[in-house]
Amino acid sequence: MALRTSAQFLAGLRDSREVYYRGQRVPSVVDHPELGIAARHAAIDYEMAENPKFRELAVHRDGSEEFSAYYRVPRDAQDLLSRSKLIEAGTTEGATLVLLIKEIGTDALFALKRVLGRSADAQGVQRVEAFYRHCRDKDLAMAVAQTDVKGDRSKRPSEQSDPDMYVRVVGKRADGIIVSGAKIHTSCTPYVDEVIVLPSRSMAPGDEPWSLAFAIPTATPGLRLYASDYLHGTDDPYTRPISTNHKMVETLTVFENVFVPWERVFYVDRPDLAGATALTFVEFHRFTAVSYKLPLLDAMVGAGIVIAKANGIDRAGHVRDKLTWLGGYVETVRGLTELAALRCIMEKGLSYPDDVTTNMAKCTFAREFHQAIETVQDLAGGLLVTGPGGTDWNSPEIRPVLEKYLPGAWPADRRMAVMNLISDLTTRSYGGYQAVLAVHAEGAIEAEKMAMFRAYDPSRSVALALRLAGLESHAPGK
Amino acid sequence: MALRTSAQFLAGLRDSREVYYRGQRVPSVVDHPELGIAARHAAIDYEMAENPKFRELAVHRDGSEEFSAYYRVPRDAQDLLSRSKLIEAGTTEGATLVLLIKEIGTDALFALKRVLGRSADAQGVQRVEAFYRHCRDKDLAMAVAQTDVKGDRSKRPSEQSDPDMYVRVVGKRADGIIVSGAKIHTSCTPYVDEVIVLPSRSMAPGDEPWSLAFAIPTATPGLRLYASDYLHGTDDPYTRPISTNHKMVETLTVFENVFVPWERVFYVDRPDLAGATALTFVEFHRFTAVSYKLPLLDAMVGAGIVIAKANGIDRAGHVRDKLTWLGGYVETVRGLTELAALRCIMEKGLSYPDDVTTNMAKCTFAREFHQAIETVQDLAGGLLVTGPGGTDWNSPEIRPVLEKYLPGAWPADRRMAVMNLISDLTTRSYGGYQAVLAVHAEGAIEAEKMAMFRAYDPSRSVALALRLAGLESHAPGK
Amino acid sequence: MALRTSAQFLAGLRDSREVYYRGQRVPSVVDHPELGIAARHAAIDYEMAENPKFRELAVHRDGSEEFSAYYRVPRDAQDLLSRSKLIEAGTTEGATLVLLIKEIGTDALFALKRVLGRSADAQGVQRVEAFYRHCRDKDLAMAVAQTDVKGDRSKRPSEQSDPDMYVRVVGKRADGIIVSGAKIHTSCTPYVDEVIVLPSRSMAPGDEPWSLAFAIPTATPGLRLYASDYLHGTDDPYTRPISTNHKMVETLTVFENVFVPWERVFYVDRPDLAGATALTFVEFHRFTAVSYKLPLLDAMVGAGIVIAKANGIDRAGHVRDKLTWLGGYVETVRGLTELAALRCIMEKGLSYPDDVTTNMAKCTFAREFHQAIETVQDLAGGLLVTGPGGTDWNSPEIRPVLEKYLPGAWPADRRMAVMNLISDLTTRSYGGYQAVLAVHAEGAIEAEKMAMFRAYDPSRSVALALRLAGLESHAPGK
Amino acid sequence: MALRTSAQFLAGLRDSREVYYRGQRVPSVVDHPELGIAARHAAIDYEMAENPKFRELAVHRDGSEEFSAYYRVPRDAQDLLSRSKLIEAGTTEGATLVLLIKEIGTDALFALKRVLGRSADAQGVQRVEAFYRHCRDKDLAMAVAQTDVKGDRSKRPSEQSDPDMYVRVVGKRADGIIVSGAKIHTSCTPYVDEVIVLPSRSMAPGDEPWSLAFAIPTATPGLRLYASDYLHGTDDPYTRPISTNHKMVETLTVFENVFVPWERVFYVDRPDLAGATALTFVEFHRFTAVSYKLPLLDAMVGAGIVIAKANGIDRAGHVRDKLTWLGGYVETVRGLTELAALRCIMEKGLSYPDDVTTNMAKCTFAREFHQAIETVQDLAGGLLVTGPGGTDWNSPEIRPVLEKYLPGAWPADRRMAVMNLISDLTTRSYGGYQAVLAVHAEGAIEAEKMAMFRAYDPSRSVALALRLAGLESHAPGK
Repeated sequence: MALRTSAQFLAGLRDSREVYYRGQRVPSVVDHPELGIAARHAAIDYEMAENPKFRELAVHRDGSEEFSAYYRVPRDAQDLLSRSKLIEAGTTEGATLVLLIKEIGTDALFALKRVLGRSADAQGVQRVEAFYRHCRDKDLAMAVAQTDVKGDRSKRPSEQSDPDMYVRVVGKRADGIIVSGAKIHTSCTPYVDEVIVLPSRSMAPGDEPWSLAFAIPTATPGLRLYASDYLHGTDDPYTRPISTNHKMVETLTVFENVFVPWERVFYVDRPDLAGATALTFVEFHRFTAVSYKLPLLDAMVGAGIVIAKANGIDRAGHVRDKLTWLGGYVETVRGLTELAALRCIMEKGLSYPDDVTTNMAKCTFAREFHQAIETVQDLAGGLLVTGPGGTDWNSPEIRPVLEKYLPGAWPADRRMAVMNLISDLTTRSYGGYQAVLAVHAEGAIEAEKMAMFRAYDPSRSVALALRLAGLESHAPGK
Repeated sequence: MALRTSAQFLAGLRDSREVYYRGQRVPSVVDHPELGIAARHAAIDYEMAENPKFRELAVHRDGSEEFSAYYRVPRDAQDLLSRSKLIEAGTTEGATLVLLIKEIGTDALFALKRVLGRSADAQGVQRVEAFYRHCRDKDLAMAVAQTDVKGDRSKRPSEQSDPDMYVRVVGKRADGIIVSGAKIHTSCTPYVDEVIVLPSRSMAPGDEPWSLAFAIPTATPGLRLYASDYLHGTDDPYTRPISTNHKMVETLTVFENVFVPWERVFYVDRPDLAGATALTFVEFHRFTAVSYKLPLLDAMVGAGIVIAKANGIDRAGHVRDKLTWLGGYVETVRGLTELAALRCIMEKGLSYPDDVTTNMAKCTFAREFHQAIETVQDLAGGLLVTGPGGTDWNSPEIRPVLEKYLPGAWPADRRMAVMNLISDLTTRSYGGYQAVLAVHAEGAIEAEKMAMFRAYDPSRSVALALRLAGLESHAPGK
Repeated sequence: MALRTSAQFLAGLRDSREVYYRGQRVPSVVDHPELGIAARHAAIDYEMAENPKFRELAVHRDGSEEFSAYYRVPRDAQDLLSRSKLIEAGTTEGATLVLLIKEIGTDALFALKRVLGRSADAQGVQRVEAFYRHCRDKDLAMAVAQTDVKGDRSKRPSEQSDPDMYVRVVGKRADGIIVSGAKIHTSCTPYVDEVIVLPSRSMAPGDEPWSLAFAIPTATPGLRLYASDYLHGTDDPYTRPISTNHKMVETLTVFENVFVPWERVFYVDRPDLAGATALTFVEFHRFTAVSYKLPLLDAMVGAGIVIAKANGIDRAGHVRDKLTWLGGYVETVRGLTELAALRCIMEKGLSYPDDVTTNMAKCTFAREFHQAIETVQDLAGGLLVTGPGGTDWNSPEIRPVLEKYLPGAWPADRRMAVMNLISDLTTRSYGGYQAVLAVHAEGAIEAEKMAMFRAYDPSRSVALALRLAGLESHAPGK
Repeated sequence: MALRTSAQFLAGLRDSREVYYRGQRVPSVVDHPELGIAARHAAIDYEMAENPKFRELAVHRDGSEEFSAYYRVPRDAQDLLSRSKLIEAGTTEGATLVLLIKEIGTDALFALKRVLGRSADAQGVQRVEAFYRHCRDKDLAMAVAQTDVKGDRSKRPSEQSDPDMYVRVVGKRADGIIVSGAKIHTSCTPYVDEVIVLPSRSMAPGDEPWSLAFAIPTATPGLRLYASDYLHGTDDPYTRPISTNHKMVETLTVFENVFVPWERVFYVDRPDLAGATALTFVEFHRFTAVSYKLPLLDAMVGAGIVIAKANGIDRAGHVRDKLTWLGGYVETVRGLTELAALRCIMEKGLSYPDDVTTNMAKCTFAREFHQAIETVQDLAGGLLVTGPGGTDWNSPEIRPVLEKYLPGAWPADRRMAVMNLISDLTTRSYGGYQAVLAVHAEGAIEAEKMAMFRAYDPSRSVALALRLAGLESHAPGK
């Protein structure tokens, strides 16, 4: 099948899906003033495939076969680098906001392939493969619903007073299963074609009904999407140059007796697979994450450099020191991301980014992002939150006053354009959105540290320490 | 004269003042949907004086004399502590947002008293004293316009291509002077009675026309206030429990041939006084600042503790570690603020908070605030930016879904109330406003570090180092 | 009784005490080439009392009564400030190394008074009081043996496979008890008159034999002191200007069937008192600690300032930035120490430094000390570890070469004197000693954080957060 | 020519070289009790080439040609990786102390090749090439004398009051030049065959006599080496398991009218080449540095892991957190080092490690090393500085006491072995040596930050920021 155009993608969203926004059922996502922006932001994915500038990167060609490059199964380091570059390019076109309608879905599919392949579950492997071909060949957009609402964090799914705190099987039929429960933080759900559902944690015997993975079309009866209005638009594009036109929407994703046919059930009643799925997905997804964070970081360091010039302070020692730190921060994340691909691990012909290196990239990103915010705000100045709005700027009476009084080393129009970019990136809702994502998306910082601890192989360093202490004979394995 | 009521204060704002908001001249600040909120927030100052709970703190009584305690000239450490407590209490009533309609004005007046007193300028002292009595006895609200728009930061006022980059004298008459130019970041200007104008930097010979300090009523002809709409309201108080009802407004403050009578000119043509005024004002004002930051910090640490409980994670080791850090951060700022008062310096019967200690408090606050934001966001979770809005919560169809799926260790209503508080404090516009103020208000971090460097007396440590190195004879002064 | 002279103190150390150093029994501590240095360092305490310059600070006079001011029971903030100043002055005379022969002992005695007073143990109170008078009136030097050797850290004393991992009662007689076991890290033991023994942790029922506090003379039979040679001297005072003449010695303190008469047993078989004693002692002792850290910090910042001048780099922006940070670090510790005294808590006529404030001072000190080391090393340069030694400097052939080639902005002799001071303070054994003490002495950083967590009262911040979230009715206590 | 054995290397050091140690001329470096240790440490380089385990890595074979692999001119990323691995392996054999007798010399030679190649100085290129062949074919050891003693840091060489503050030409003859002056911090000089001399900074017109590069045998008349005794040995290998047997020595390297024949003068009177040489050398040398830091970092993290086990605290949450941080720190440096090779830049058939990436590795290493020290000390405990020495341990009377009282989760002998390793690494002279090297070697932190600032290419980030701000037309180059 051919690749879809962005128009075809948007047309495909006009179906019976059950989406709620600000208390109201949304008749058409595409035509909705807020959700439509998010859908068109996502559609950049399809536009890139049509754009000669990105075609090489965005479209995989293999003989006569042609499909979105997100669906390319990585076979070597180069494939992983290409995937990373594609994600980075998409996010750059998205003005620092990831598109995420194929990235995360393929992360999930590659993870399911690996986990089911390892467990030698032939039926599961076949179902994942069939679903993968379906999505790839129809050029579909996917969301992944992973994080459960969780209820009491100290209890396992089967111990919760309300069993719906984790998505679960409530019935089985000859043709499929019935599921209920809810997921939270599901990105892009209202404007994708398919929703892949994965467990969010390890499970133990007794947790069978909660141990399942499946996929359903967004328009499946009983699937209800309660969209967050966090990035709800404003009337002022002047002060929000990014977020006026770019938006991502998360949902509370409720399953009320949703029917899933067997061919869409990748596994069920498998506590042994749940933890592996959750971890493997996150390993892939963190590589996606560090790839899509790069344009945001580039924008931060670039905005820092530019506003220092616009303010006329770029030669001060402390400013150079801050810019050097910012640049080093960004390039460390970029370098470790590249290295995670170069150090890829091969398993059954597939290549996976190196886990420790990916986690180092992600932790470096996450732990210093708020310092980057502070640094850029420091370079910009108080005008970030005391400056004029768009109606002021557009007023023929007021603009001359602003033009006279707000220049620095650059004239007021250019200086304020950069100031507003930084305000959007760091002080308004979009800035807060990115800041919280830095701490929580793709696993919170504590989860990443645990992943590091698990993945880190201490044998070299322990052996050296024991040798230096004269305790070679006590080295592990001896 | 008697203290004014809040109604009297608001009534006093109905005059000919020239205020612009979103491109429009504002006919009545008090009746304006946005500026009115800010004015009523400021009016909390007057409400406290009427409230028996705060009367002792907010009203100074001396025999039959009775005036707002902000106007009390501090005579000892206890007076400074009381002033600090009053500012803290006002900001607590303002829900973490400082009131600032008497704090900053008295900071300016005390600084002018000190600077002119030291320079033995009897006429200037007398004019400041007369203006001080005028404001105190009529219980007036004041703004301070200090930061000039500055233009090219590498040049002095007299070197700027446009001489209006710093406010200046453009003419002198028998009855007063004419001033032009503009100030930026002026807080509360649209809803105060008087505007005090101070230089923002040191001046040198040649900068005479820019070396002046004066005060004028807000409704003075030629004074034009262009208000920032940065904290422009939203339609959703559910997700903005603080900022829906509390607001502060900054202006670009333009002087176009404004007449100032001589009795309101504290000095003019005095480059020798400009730097001292700027520094002395900021020294006082930083003590105000660290006092008014405390409720914001208390709210942050309190919200961190409460959301950890609401999420059911308060017993985790890393959570206790983070809360301990947060508590230590807040209490260090509070402790140093208290100590700055206890270590006060007496000069001509007036007490001044210790400069080094105040700067340590301010630097500690400023340097770690973004880490506090990160920490509280970390404890709260992704719901900060993916959760429901007020229309969802108020929908009879949707609320039951939210109540079912969004509880943690606390039920959904209480958990979401805390989540929204944290979102308002850290991820939305109000959070960004406070974050930028942390870095830039009352002097940027670099300015505070320079103030520390200047104020720090190294003689003890240098003498000890020389003695330990056997170089006693090289100690300074020998 | 009269105060003792330093000669009397040293003479008093010539007794049957059983001290081992480098594998050998030490016949006379005072005459030992290494331990004698430590004893004479400690004797500075007695010299100060004889020195008119320090007499006011070091000697308490009350009518005809006269005793060492360390023994003064603090009755108000001023007494605590005086105690802090005395400790600071003693450590300054000790060239950044605390004297500690009365500081820690009185910390222990004040703690025992408080704990036994609270528990209404009249006999215990009387025994402590009697022992206190004995020490005070004879002007004795004391060590405190608290930290047990601990064995398996995951087990309580009664659960250890070897019961001697914590000091314990092994027998009781009509006239006293017999104790065995060992303490570690005991400072100054070889050259004090009395050793006070306290529990190092909380105990539970079953831990009775390990739950005791007592005091014995150093020369008690069965008490064996194995002194660490960590600070063993070198042959080069040129490169160790401090540590050549100043030394503190810790022991492994072994009790082998040591008899303790009942009047020296403050309590025994009291698991309920053990934890309180350990905590209360540490609370007092941390105030001592932050007082005695100040000269070390002053020496660091002073050395940083001086070497920057000697190297000719003191005007560089980054150097000023580092010096400002150093100064702010030191003064924050000093300020919080002072504040801990000013905020003292009164209980039964005694004043105690505020616990939260003391812990903030201690944590601030501990968490940033290694950064201070790095900063001072950064300012000094590589000569710290590549420079000449004393034999080079004293060689008539080589010194001219060094004088020609090693000047900076200061001549070589003065520059190298400061360089060597910094090397002693930060790169050689003495530097390492202070660095480890920063992390571990008076409780490790993690213990201090736990103490902070326990001592911090969150009620104000929690109440504010709940109020701002509209949850006043859920405030604690309602 | 054949590779030399370590015995041949040591034999080669017995010549007329003029070395001073502790005020005395050293008749034979190899036989000297201190310098001999350093020479034998360096000889590990030659032992590795003889050892089958390292032969592949340490010896380059090209047909019949065979030479030390340090001399292999890197032609691709793999050559750089091999070089890095060789340096890492050598330092591991050196027990965390770099060998450095070929690493730094080849760094200098590769840099001279590049700089002279670029400047098309055919004679210079030929002289470097000839000297390179001489060293390679005779398997020589080399030191590099770069850092001048500098005098007044604010002045250029020609402005110094004493012209000898930078090494300079004092005379020219038909057969060569005469040089005088002094270098400092020169590593390994007493026990190498050749000394390469490079400028340490950029020069300007007027600085001609100071703008030169050359090489001479160590035994050249007039070359005087004043060796630092910083790592002077102790009598206790028990507490210094590394530094008793491994040592590196720096010299003050004085040139008194030293004759250099023309074929050994790579250039002279070339201010235009001085800065490029200094920078290019440091670029190479920083790649060497990050390679040789890895065993030190491995030892730190390994010692941290092992002591946590030995103390029985490895399951505590805060301990896992600290170990995770340590591991991430080490692996980030390692990863960026590897990436610097993988991203190598090709120029005229030679490959150079990527400069920005190398600097990121070096800065990451340098900025966090003191935190790593603190962390490992934190995990180890106070015994680092209060524990027994070797004479205690070897005493038949005392060892049983130590064995009884000093176990943790591991018996006392193994626990103390690790404790002593950590003490050597972090608290004693060797620890201080490594700490100062972290801050100053291969350029101080500030120099590295400047190198980062210069090397960082901001064009991508600036272009993105301008585009997001709607200022595409203002991008650089437009």
